[in-house]
Amino acid sequence: MKTTQEILIAAKKAVAGLCGKTTEQKNAALLSMAAALESATEEILAANRQDLTAAQGNISTVMQDRLLLTKDRIGAMADGMRAVAKLPDAVGRVLESHQHPNGMLLQKVTVPMGVVAIIYESRPNVTSDAAALALKSGNVCILRSGKEAFCSAYAIVCALQKGLSAVGITPDAVQLIEDTSRASADELMRADGFVDLLIPRGGAGLIRRCVEHATVPCIQTGTGICHIYVDGAADVKKALTILENAKTSRPSVCNAAEVCLVDRAIAETFLPRMEERLCGSSAPHPVELRVDETAAVILPHAQKAGAQDFDTEFLDYILAVAVVDGVDGAVQHIAAHSTHHSEAIVTEDQTAADFFTAAVDSAAVYVNVSTRFTDGGEFGLGCEMGISTQKLHARGPMGLAELTTYKYIITGNGQIRK
Amino acid sequence: MKTTQEILIAAKKAVAGLCGKTTEQKNAALLSMAAALESATEEILAANRQDLTAAQGNISTVMQDRLLLTKDRIGAMADGMRAVAKLPDAVGRVLESHQHPNGMLLQKVTVPMGVVAIIYESRPNVTSDAAALALKSGNVCILRSGKEAFCSAYAIVCALQKGLSAVGITPDAVQLIEDTSRASADELMRADGFVDLLIPRGGAGLIRRCVEHATVPCIQTGTGICHIYVDGAADVKKALTILENAKTSRPSVCNAAEVCLVDRAIAETFLPRMEERLCGSSAPHPVELRVDETAAVILPHAQKAGAQDFDTEFLDYILAVAVVDGVDGAVQHIAAHSTHHSEAIVTEDQTAADFFTAAVDSAAVYVNVSTRFTDGGEFGLGCEMGISTQKLHARGPMGLAELTTYKYIITGNGQIRK
Repeated sequence: MKTTQEILIAAKKAVAGLCGKTTEQKNAALLSMAAALESATEEILAANRQDLTAAQGNISTVMQDRLLLTKDRIGAMADGMRAVAKLPDAVGRVLESHQHPNGMLLQKVTVPMGVVAIIYESRPNVTSDAAALALKSGNVCILRSGKEAFCSAYAIVCALQKGLSAVGITPDAVQLIEDTSRASADELMRADGFVDLLIPRGGAGLIRRCVEHATVPCIQTGTGICHIYVDGAADVKKALTILENAKTSRPSVCNAAEVCLVDRAIAETFLPRMEERLCGSSAPHPVELRVDETAAVILPHAQKAGAQDFDTEFLDYILAVAVVDGVDGAVQHIAAHSTHHSEAIVTEDQTAADFFTAAVDSAAVYVNVSTRFTDGGEFGLGCEMGISTQKLHARGPMGLAELTTYKYIITGNGQIRK
Repeated sequence: MKTTQEILIAAKKAVAGLCGKTTEQKNAALLSMAAALESATEEILAANRQDLTAAQGNISTVMQDRLLLTKDRIGAMADGMRAVAKLPDAVGRVLESHQHPNGMLLQKVTVPMGVVAIIYESRPNVTSDAAALALKSGNVCILRSGKEAFCSAYAIVCALQKGLSAVGITPDAVQLIEDTSRASADELMRADGFVDLLIPRGGAGLIRRCVEHATVPCIQTGTGICHIYVDGAADVKKALTILENAKTSRPSVCNAAEVCLVDRAIAETFLPRMEERLCGSSAPHPVELRVDETAAVILPHAQKAGAQDFDTEFLDYILAVAVVDGVDGAVQHIAAHSTHHSEAIVTEDQTAADFFTAAVDSAAVYVNVSTRFTDGGEFGLGCEMGISTQKLHARGPMGLAELTTYKYIITGNGQIRK
């Protein structure tokens, strides 16, 4: 077994080889990795069966489905890598260029970060997605998969490394941490000088641990307590449609709504219609409401919200509901409870909409649109390495550009500073 | 005395008021602050005398000069604020805009960070500079001055707050931490939810403490062990001029050169000329060389370098010198010892120059130019809040744009995700 330290050293060594590759060389590597992935389908499926057998009884059926690989799913992973090959290169772009009065030329040019480490959980496709995005952006990547998916991830990385070797790129450009204990995650968090960017993809516990312990640069991702505010001036039909979509189209993802805030001005008429739409007999999957005291008067049969319900990412068919005093009240509630991911206002009042978009401090702020659109693909990035909920460097969906940094290159002819 | 906690709470409250201000309102505030600063000249000079009296005997004369304020220096600080008023607004810029196939409009817009905290040392002008840049970028700022300059900083902030009040902006938009013990710096580093960006400006010790302890987003600044590599294909006259400028024009600043690397191919002829230029009787201020073993054979009278000399930011008339094997050797030495600030190659060989700029992983990489140009003003930013030596968010000189983040604003007409 390779130690994490050995992997870090090998990754650092691989940086120089990767940062000089042309777009064509990187794209050829991605196609080669995709082909190698498909060629290794049998090995990967066998490894995946090991993971599934070990997981049985330990994880929920939803989690087991996330973990499950099939020939089709491996094909989709390979296609994902081919799609990344088609994206424009984010490296080598001249962001700014100007000539100093003394004649020297100053250029601000995008460059790879260097070594990007990703800590993630059980979805095996993250292994190939992350490797593809890192490689296309010229970065060496270190992957730390969740324990439950380790065998699958190991088989996938072996295939990807074969693909790299086939085109003359060091396999150390994509490496998997072999120690699946918490110690290896901690080691990555404190690998100063080795890890240029750490992206933790996982639950609130992992993110918090990174904030507390990481000394390497780190981007917080993912946790989404997303709010839909239904304003007094809302088109109620739009509001119901957006709310239903944001809550129920895919409750397990971070851009799903967890909280509905309703303007006191329309609470009495809106809340019963909302209850009927989300919880009534014609709802495809009934939603459990957890309502604050004011809403409880209007919806006497709904469950009352507990102290934590407005600070919980349910990731389930559960919706917390509160009545607020107009857009001001909504903004205040969001400021106190949001995770700065995605929030929406439903209103036909432009003034209320403008106030909401200016005052809400989140990565994505929507007017009359479902929060479910916060996604790299939907935002036109072509891909996604995660959704940043912090303000430094990257906010919202992270694509290839967010995996680069820049340097200034200044060329002259002997210029000195007076 | 206000506690740090009280200041943090007041700062957070001030964010909403500041983020809605127009460019004109912010510029009016800057002019008002500048006028208030000049009006308070007597009070500020009296406070500065208190600082200087307390500092006598405790700090060097160089540091005392840094601390000293005069009527002219206060005038220059006010002029600096007026110059910031003339800079273009970095907030509200639409970085990207595109229409989704479903008709919704997606815009990526620059917005203030929120609360920016700056920990700095003894130069009182940083107080007004930082406040001006923060205000112009729509940020509330919390300033923590060094103990030696506290009375001066306090008097300056009181004046600035009067200037804010005069134009109807809450004085809490610019606040000074009143507790000058280390505890208040630690409190800022861990003020999650209150500080959106922390900029430590100071020595390596403060920066390291931030990396180790900060849980708020933080940008490392300043430490510069800058290298000048003199290639075998260098124009020797250019090399000597650049080296002299980079080392001696202002040795106390972070973009001054600390290390000269000389290609083995020309070491025998170059080193004696360098010694004569930097240390000879005609040198305006002789430089002390600290040379590696190979260079010591050629320069037998020079002091030999100790173990730490290639990892020290001298900030003085001292230059570490090593002989390396061509541009490859230079890149390797820099990778092992650089602080990723600024490095230069002197060469007439385009291939060597291209290799150097691609392989050296620093904020600013120069070809035939002195490293002394790494500066917000020289780079065309119009101002500077510090020089980032990290890769996340901002690299190199930080101006107004680097004090902003962005949000996505999505407007539609009831769009939902299928």
